[in-house]
Amino acid sequence: METLEVRTSRREQLVDITAKVREAVRRAGVEEGVAHLWSLHTTCGLTVNEGADPDVARDIAWKLGDLVPQDEPAYRHAEGNSDSHVKTSLINPGATLIVAAGDVLLGTPGRPYFSRSSTGPGSESWVSR
Amino acid sequence: METLEVRTSRREQLVDITAKVREAVRRAGVEEGVAHLWSLHTTCGLTVNEGADPDVARDIAWKLGDLVPQDEPAYRHAEGNSDSHVKTSLINPGATLIVAAGDVLLGTPGRPYFSRSSTGPGSESWVSR
Amino acid sequence: METLEVRTSRREQLVDITAKVREAVRRAGVEEGVAHLWSLHTTCGLTVNEGADPDVARDIAWKLGDLVPQDEPAYRHAEGNSDSHVKTSLINPGATLIVAAGDVLLGTPGRPYFSRSSTGPGSESWVSR
Repeated sequence: METLEVRTSRREQLVDITAKVREAVRRAGVEEGVAHLWSLHTTCGLTVNEGADPDVARDIAWKLGDLVPQDEPAYRHAEGNSDSHVKTSLINPGATLIVAAGDVLLGTPGRPYFSRSSTGPGSESWVSR
Repeated sequence: METLEVRTSRREQLVDITAKVREAVRRAGVEEGVAHLWSLHTTCGLTVNEGADPDVARDIAWKLGDLVPQDEPAYRHAEGNSDSHVKTSLINPGATLIVAAGDVLLGTPGRPYFSRSSTGPGSESWVSR
Repeated sequence: METLEVRTSRREQLVDITAKVREAVRRAGVEEGVAHLWSLHTTCGLTVNEGADPDVARDIAWKLGDLVPQDEPAYRHAEGNSDSHVKTSLINPGATLIVAAGDVLLGTPGRPYFSRSSTGPGSESWVSR
């Protein structure tokens, strides 16, 4: 098991973690199997989506914020980030990727993303096993 | 493989299943590995989210109902619980948790939840392996 | 690992892949374990939901389109299918199913679905391991 870190630069962001995931799989020396990724904070999630055009990740983050805005009078959680927690459960806190021929099998044109929606930019970690 | 039961007390609810999951992992005697959870009814799902403040689970259930209300004139499913099925596919019917040092690795401050949206309170089971 | 194909006949559709999944599990000869499914295109996803009434899959596809419409002035991705990518991240690009007694354990009345939202009907593949 390995813990990796990712840095975000704004409140809602999908960060491409392809290089980190590929390196972790290579370090683990797995040829055929699965890679389990898990976010270590409940305001973050993991997904795989198109990486050819960075506007896709931007559009996903925008649409998540459109569906689940930060401020809703009905929210009761005092920290003011209920939207971030909702997004984590919608996106998924973890991802299980298939490893084939020593690399993650992502589909066309898939890249793993670390999705974070929190009170500001920061650094969060996630684990790979 | 083990089948566990969880009781819900209202139509839309996230039930904290941390104790049940931890006990199942302990009984299985796994030190390092993964725990696969799967809901045995298609109106339920499994997620991990903040457990420190119970309002987070309440806000997630509220927002799911806000996004996917029970009644929509366009729904055709005669049982009247299409919203529950939609929520299951959004939340995810299963979860794969990482086990390290004999315990599930949940992140800060994560707890596994059993999410149910159905015709009323009841008891549903899910499996852990 | 095995690659399977599924054909869709309209832009937004959930296709029941129960038979394909069961056959793949049988071919793999696994009695107890897990089956990892992964979509090979980032406009597709995998979920499990009710299969007894086909209106459930229809209602899920409808509600996804209602929540995430194809056209939003804020989308920037030039291909015009940002909605499809959002839906993939909401539904999940993959699924990990529990295999017991040589068959996938799906719950009542669960069936695995391949969800596709793309530029038109077509054929996409997904892998099972």
